[in-house]
Amino acid sequence: MDYTEAFTSAVARVRAEGRYRVFANLRRYKGQFPRARWRTPDGDVRDVTVWCSNDYLGMGQSACVTESMKQAIDDVGAGAGGTRNISGTTHYHVELERSLADLHDKEAALLFTSGYIANEATLATLGKILPGLIIFSDALNHASMIEGVRGARCEKHVWRHNDVAHLEELLKAAPAGAPKLIAFESVYSMDGDVGPIEAVCDLAEKYGALTYLDEVHAVGLYGLRGGGIAERDGLLDRIDIIEGTLGKAFGVMGGYIAADAVIVDAVRSWAPGFIFTTSLAPSLAAGARASVEYLKSAHELREKHQERAATLKARVREAGLPLMESETHIVPIRVGDPVMCKRLSDALLDDHGLYVQPINYPTVPRGTERLRFTPTPLHDDTMMDELVEALEEVWTRFKAVRAA
Amino acid sequence: MDYTEAFTSAVARVRAEGRYRVFANLRRYKGQFPRARWRTPDGDVRDVTVWCSNDYLGMGQSACVTESMKQAIDDVGAGAGGTRNISGTTHYHVELERSLADLHDKEAALLFTSGYIANEATLATLGKILPGLIIFSDALNHASMIEGVRGARCEKHVWRHNDVAHLEELLKAAPAGAPKLIAFESVYSMDGDVGPIEAVCDLAEKYGALTYLDEVHAVGLYGLRGGGIAERDGLLDRIDIIEGTLGKAFGVMGGYIAADAVIVDAVRSWAPGFIFTTSLAPSLAAGARASVEYLKSAHELREKHQERAATLKARVREAGLPLMESETHIVPIRVGDPVMCKRLSDALLDDHGLYVQPINYPTVPRGTERLRFTPTPLHDDTMMDELVEALEEVWTRFKAVRAA
Repeated sequence: MDYTEAFTSAVARVRAEGRYRVFANLRRYKGQFPRARWRTPDGDVRDVTVWCSNDYLGMGQSACVTESMKQAIDDVGAGAGGTRNISGTTHYHVELERSLADLHDKEAALLFTSGYIANEATLATLGKILPGLIIFSDALNHASMIEGVRGARCEKHVWRHNDVAHLEELLKAAPAGAPKLIAFESVYSMDGDVGPIEAVCDLAEKYGALTYLDEVHAVGLYGLRGGGIAERDGLLDRIDIIEGTLGKAFGVMGGYIAADAVIVDAVRSWAPGFIFTTSLAPSLAAGARASVEYLKSAHELREKHQERAATLKARVREAGLPLMESETHIVPIRVGDPVMCKRLSDALLDDHGLYVQPINYPTVPRGTERLRFTPTPLHDDTMMDELVEALEEVWTRFKAVRAA
Repeated sequence: MDYTEAFTSAVARVRAEGRYRVFANLRRYKGQFPRARWRTPDGDVRDVTVWCSNDYLGMGQSACVTESMKQAIDDVGAGAGGTRNISGTTHYHVELERSLADLHDKEAALLFTSGYIANEATLATLGKILPGLIIFSDALNHASMIEGVRGARCEKHVWRHNDVAHLEELLKAAPAGAPKLIAFESVYSMDGDVGPIEAVCDLAEKYGALTYLDEVHAVGLYGLRGGGIAERDGLLDRIDIIEGTLGKAFGVMGGYIAADAVIVDAVRSWAPGFIFTTSLAPSLAAGARASVEYLKSAHELREKHQERAATLKARVREAGLPLMESETHIVPIRVGDPVMCKRLSDALLDDHGLYVQPINYPTVPRGTERLRFTPTPLHDDTMMDELVEALEEVWTRFKAVRAA
C-alpha cells in the first residue's frame, strides 16, 4: 500500500476541482480593524482591508473585551488546565453560562470549545438520550450540524431548504408518537437568508417535535439585546435549544447551547465532546462575557451594522454587479465559477489591497461560487468607494458576468 | 412525547450510577499555582491546593506564556474572526505550526481548536481519504479517538490494551493489500502506563500499516526537547501521525497533528472539523508557541517533574495507601467504588482544602474507581506532607481499602 500516493491523490482531487485552499497569512492592527497586514507568499508585508471577517461588529478589537481577557490572564493564567469536571471550571465559565442563559431567556447554558463542537456534540448526544429519535434537518444546515446528525445514528430526513410544506410532509409521514427534532438555522451564512422560524415552531407544536435553532450568524446582531433572530421575532420561548457562537459577533472563540436546565444537564452529563476536553481558556470566557454583556445594551451598534450592509448592497446594485439579494448583513456577489472566483479574489488582494476570500464548493453548491462581503460598522464610506471601484475594475478586466 | 421526562430520566440514569458530576468552581491565583480559590456551593470562598490539574508543569502560570498572550491581544485583538481559510490565519498560527513540526521532527503540523477535535477529525477523515482503510484501535484509547474511529465508518478492530500479540493476530487476519492504521496512545492518562511504541512500529512495518500516536499526556513532558515518549525512545521517524495538545503540559488550549507535509495537506483539505470552524484565538497560538519553544530547552523542569512524581509515589507507598503502580507522572490511588471515591474526594476538599476529583466510570472501568494525583514541579515537600497526612486521615475515617 503506497500511502504517500493515496494522500497525494486526495489532495490532487481537491486541486482538480479548483478548490485547493491557500490560506492568506494576516495580522490585524488592533484598534485599526478592518485594516490588517498581509504577508504575501514572497514574504513581503502589505496593508490590506479585510472584507470577509465574521467578527461582524469588530468586537474582537473592543477594549472592553481585550482588557477583560488581559485581566483574566493576570488573575488566573493562560489555560484552564483540565476538563470542566477535572479542575477546569472557573468562575468565568459559570458567569458566562449565566450571561448566555439570560441572553436567550433560558434556564441554563452550556459552553463548548467551539460552535462546531456545540452542534456536533449536542445533536449526536440527543440521538443517544432520546431513543427512537427522528431528526428533520434543513438541507443547507452547516457542516457541524450534518456531522452531529450523522453521529446521532438515528433516522433522519432532510427537508428542502426553508420549505415548510416539505417539512410538514415529512413530519406527517413519521409515527405520531416518536420523538422528533427539527434542526435548522436562523441566518444562513452564505446566502444571508433567514429560516422560517415561526412556521417551523407551528409545525413543531402540531407534530410534537423539539426545535433546535443554530443562531451562530445572528447572536449579538439581531434582537434588542443581541439574542438573535428568535429574540427579534419574539419566538425565544418556542425554541427548545438555541445554539450560538462566541467567535463571530462576540469576537472571541467558543460555542454554546441555551435551553431548559434539564436539557442542559442531560447534554452536560452525556456528551463526550463536552466531557472529555479541556475547557475554554479562562481569558476567552472572560472576554466573551464582557462582549455578551456589552452588546445587550449596544443596540445602536446593531443598527449601524444593518445600515452599513444596506448601503453596500445599494452601491453594488447601482454598479450593476450581480448582488445575490440577502435579507441580512451578508453581502454575496455571484461569480458562478470557481476559477474566476479565485482570479477576482486574487486581483482584489494583489492589485487593490482588498481581502475577500473566494467561496467555492463544498462551502456553496457548484455554479453558485461567489465573493462574500461582511461590512462591519467600521467599514466607512471611503472604504466602500474603494471597494466598489475595485470591483468594477476587476469585473471589467476579467469579463466576469454582470447583473442580468 | 414527554421530552422533559426523557431528559430527566437521562440525568437520573447518571445519578443512579453514582457518577453525576458537580463541577468545582475554582479560580487560581496566578503566580501561586497550585493554590486556588474554591467557591463552595454555599457561596463561600476558600483557599485550596489543586492536585488534579493537567497543567502538568504549571506553564499556564508562566510569565513567558501569559506575557505572549497579552502582547498578542494588544497587537491584534481577541478572536481570529474566521475559519483558517476565511480571514482566520494569522502569523501566530503559521509560526506555531512550524514550532510543532520542528518539535516532532516532522515536515508539517496542523492546528485544531482542541486535542479532542484533532483526534476526532483526523481519524474520521483518514477513513474518507483512504478507501478500504482498516483501523486497529487500542481498547483503552481516549473517547475522542473512539469517536474519530466511529466517524471513519470503516472496518475496525479493537486490540486488547497494550497487547501486541493480539494486535498481530488481528493484523495477520486482515487482507495483506488493504490500507491499515494502528491508533494508540503513548501515556494512558488514567493509569499512567505507556504504549509499546517500538513493538507497534515493528508490526506496522511488517504488515504495512500507518501509525497514529496520541501523545497528549506526554508532549512537553518527555524527550530532551519535550517531543513526547516517541522522542524519548528515538522513535519519532517511525510514527506517521503524532497528535498532541496545547492544553496540558503547554498550559494553554488547542490541539494538533504533526506528520509528512502531504498527510497534513490532505487532512487540511478534507476534514470538516478543521475547515468549518473559527480558528484558535491568536493569543492562544502566541502563548502556546512561547510555551513550546520554552520547553524545548527546559529539560530541568521535566526532570523536576519526574522527581516530584517519584517522591509522591514513594510517600503514598510508605503510607500503605493503595497506589496503582504507574510508569509516568500520573499517581493514581485505587478506591474501587464510585460512592466511596466521591466521599473521599469531598472530605479532602471540605476538611483539608485539597482538591482532587473522583475518577469514576465511564472515565475508568467500573471497580477501578480512583483518585488521580498529578504533582507538578510546584508541589513542594510541605504540600506532599499535608496531602499524605490528609489521605491517611480520610482513609481511616471512612475505612477505605488500604494496600494489600
